[in-house]
Amino acid sequence: MELLKKRILVDGAIVDGNVIKVDSFLNHQIDIDLLKEIGKEFKSRFQNEKVDKILTIEASGIAIAVIAAQYFNVPVVFAKKTESKNLDKETYESSVHSFTKNITYTIRVSKKYINEGENILIIDDFLANGKAVEGLLDIVNKAKAKVTGVGIVIEKGFQKGGKNIRDKGIKLESLAIVEGVEDGKIIFR
Amino acid sequence: MELLKKRILVDGAIVDGNVIKVDSFLNHQIDIDLLKEIGKEFKSRFQNEKVDKILTIEASGIAIAVIAAQYFNVPVVFAKKTESKNLDKETYESSVHSFTKNITYTIRVSKKYINEGENILIIDDFLANGKAVEGLLDIVNKAKAKVTGVGIVIEKGFQKGGKNIRDKGIKLESLAIVEGVEDGKIIFR
Repeated sequence: MELLKKRILVDGAIVDGNVIKVDSFLNHQIDIDLLKEIGKEFKSRFQNEKVDKILTIEASGIAIAVIAAQYFNVPVVFAKKTESKNLDKETYESSVHSFTKNITYTIRVSKKYINEGENILIIDDFLANGKAVEGLLDIVNKAKAKVTGVGIVIEKGFQKGGKNIRDKGIKLESLAIVEGVEDGKIIFR
Repeated sequence: MELLKKRILVDGAIVDGNVIKVDSFLNHQIDIDLLKEIGKEFKSRFQNEKVDKILTIEASGIAIAVIAAQYFNVPVVFAKKTESKNLDKETYESSVHSFTKNITYTIRVSKKYINEGENILIIDDFLANGKAVEGLLDIVNKAKAKVTGVGIVIEKGFQKGGKNIRDKGIKLESLAIVEGVEDGKIIFR
């Protein structure tokens, strides 16, 4: 997606060698015009697939999922990272390790909101080691639902998450794949 | 907002006497059609106000803020509840106590994304004791920005958050105000 790649080059930053910082337009401050284009692009890439529901994970995945859901005309479900009185007791759970934050946490989705046989599109902002997406795939499997595909805004192609998901035969669409950083400049695949 | 009140009566649930559970359409599974109507309603209620940016807090506030932002045509900034490598070192911070989760946490917004003199509309899903909104107001004040108003989807009118904010002279628009629960039925103000 050229608009996104240009924006990453103009406004993205590299931190600690391999952290791509896009908090000026994607995951802290959010440019709504860009987000709408991202939503339309996901719709275009999955236009031939059956999508009953979009599944994402809090927090920054939510913004992308709800904007995209307008174009698919389906509900969104977001997996929760924290326990809450408001969450049902009956949940599908999975463990996710975050390399960025160096913690392992449990993600949960109420059993009411993913049903057997539903076609689920997973959407998230970043794909690096792929642990969050693997946790969501695990939840979809536990619910006996089907994975339509995975839509990612920015994939870090130099980490193994993308390859692992494609190796499972899952349709993975990443709107920008960063191959690496050379002389402080982001190189796309 | 009649559409919202009807939906709360049909699909909302009461847990532990005073927790209003709307996770089937608002804060776990999200009905996008309803969310768009909520976004339009906020635009209508603040149509005469100057709004440069919408500020919310992760996680469930994000969905509402980004959909609303489409109608205001402004960016969204969401306050973060957890520390992250990706967050700038220079942040405005505030402490927020959650009665639902019984913890106090620090919310943070990068100093880059709220600027002196900007007109900020605060949006969140729930208002009960008002601690999250007070934290956001504190951050807006620290940034020397202006509060245009506060937009809330569901206010629990039997708790003190709404009164406290209105007593400050801030324009608070709650799309549904729950006055209480009688015989297991939700009563609106």
